[in-house]
Amino acid sequence: MNHVLAIDWGTSSLRGALLDDTGKVLEERSIARGVLTVSPGEFATVFEAHFDQWVRATGTFCLISGMAGSRQGWIEAPYCACPAGFDEIAHALAWITPGRIAIVPGLHCEHGGIPDVMRGEETQVLGALQLLGLRDALLVLPGTHSKWVRVRSRRIEHFATLMTGEFYALLRQHSILARTLPTDDGELDLDAFNQGVALALRGNSLLQTTFSARTLSLFERLPAPALPSYLSGLVIGEELRAQPLQAGETVVVIGSNTLTERYELALAQRHVSVQCVGQEAAWCGLWAIAESLSPSLSEMS
Amino acid sequence: MNHVLAIDWGTSSLRGALLDDTGKVLEERSIARGVLTVSPGEFATVFEAHFDQWVRATGTFCLISGMAGSRQGWIEAPYCACPAGFDEIAHALAWITPGRIAIVPGLHCEHGGIPDVMRGEETQVLGALQLLGLRDALLVLPGTHSKWVRVRSRRIEHFATLMTGEFYALLRQHSILARTLPTDDGELDLDAFNQGVALALRGNSLLQTTFSARTLSLFERLPAPALPSYLSGLVIGEELRAQPLQAGETVVVIGSNTLTERYELALAQRHVSVQCVGQEAAWCGLWAIAESLSPSLSEMS
Repeated sequence: MNHVLAIDWGTSSLRGALLDDTGKVLEERSIARGVLTVSPGEFATVFEAHFDQWVRATGTFCLISGMAGSRQGWIEAPYCACPAGFDEIAHALAWITPGRIAIVPGLHCEHGGIPDVMRGEETQVLGALQLLGLRDALLVLPGTHSKWVRVRSRRIEHFATLMTGEFYALLRQHSILARTLPTDDGELDLDAFNQGVALALRGNSLLQTTFSARTLSLFERLPAPALPSYLSGLVIGEELRAQPLQAGETVVVIGSNTLTERYELALAQRHVSVQCVGQEAAWCGLWAIAESLSPSLSEMS
Repeated sequence: MNHVLAIDWGTSSLRGALLDDTGKVLEERSIARGVLTVSPGEFATVFEAHFDQWVRATGTFCLISGMAGSRQGWIEAPYCACPAGFDEIAHALAWITPGRIAIVPGLHCEHGGIPDVMRGEETQVLGALQLLGLRDALLVLPGTHSKWVRVRSRRIEHFATLMTGEFYALLRQHSILARTLPTDDGELDLDAFNQGVALALRGNSLLQTTFSARTLSLFERLPAPALPSYLSGLVIGEELRAQPLQAGETVVVIGSNTLTERYELALAQRHVSVQCVGQEAAWCGLWAIAESLSPSLSEMS
């Protein structure tokens, strides 16, 4: 296979990497042109402005994951049903230029009559499987909308979205706690974070545990600078409380160092160990999907 | 006993009622001068501007409940520890003018090392006990910060705060759902509300159930005008899920008609029936506390 141009076009950023024929990153770019900043009809122009040089120079195949495939994106790549692995996803690509540029579909699944969706995370999960050489795994992608993903035989069987990061931001910025919390999050306060996780794991509703950030402050049992860490522990602990984890299990955490560190700490309270994978999971996933397409690509182009 | 001037001075409003010697409301006033709008040192002036005529005319004893007794209020009435009933509260009044004007203290309790507090609700609870002739009860005061209160032998034994109304407002106004939800809540959509309650009662975390408002809308299974009712069902359902309720039990709901209707609907899904009490609970509670003071008042004045 030739070089691959891997693009992760999300809500708030546009990242690209030029990969060689072994999947190694030759060059990376990150541009503040997330899908939210791009008007309908403007996607091709933005893409060409930033990546045409790479495409022309190398005759590269380009694969795009993330919100660029949503209804508000470049073209809609309809959700692919779970279970789905490399084959199902490769068959459901939405082609912008046949044989040259394609968008990876998101996935949907259903639990008890309620649909769930992801876009972009499926690619990171496939990348993590490649990187770690796993066929079966439980993975979490922490963030604004965290995803918990169960993989069996290299296929995503089901997943669940938890709005952990968004709840943290809402409580941090707009709730009654915003008056008490310091403007800046500061360094992670380990004790306060662990205390928040422990309270959440005891099983009370988040509606109730959140109020403890106020009362512990009112009774001067937690100083204001420790409150952001405590609140972070409460919401991450609530996320973990909701997962059917077995003690001794290993969870793959895909994300930035800041977040994976917190999840590792919190998961330790559930006696679960972690394997961490960084942002390279997206490049690896895109490369692996492209590679699985390789034979049909030569026919198409 | 003489007339009583009952004042409920909360965060966002100042309400007063002149009660005759049987506790009957002779006249009521509601003014947009909640504690948040009053500067330190200005409380006496605001009080006199609106109620001095009543006090002078009748030589009335005045009892105030609510946030006026907080650290940011008129004078601080320190929290009284649970269990607490009429006697404990009457002994812990904070006197502004001995024998004439007093503030009812809030209560605090502790669960598993976490303190909880209320101010104003204790008075409504005592009022509801009087109105319904109860000695033992489980009560809920729905609102921005809902309170669940357990009363035994006419004393508040313990209580818990759940930030249900605040979470609803945060999600409604500031979350990703705000883009999809209509500007106006509109009429309650019974089916959507009940569907939200049912999902919450199944036990998934609020972090996860909230995302269903987005996906049900995305897959066009819930029309946008039904989403506020659905979201209301989710948060109220989450509040109820967290309560150790027995089927067949009765819960006393103290609040406005709009809210008590929703709690009655939601509690029916837990096979619990309700007795509803309105805003008159505060007047009745203040009058009952004043009455229990009556002998000592004549000594003081």
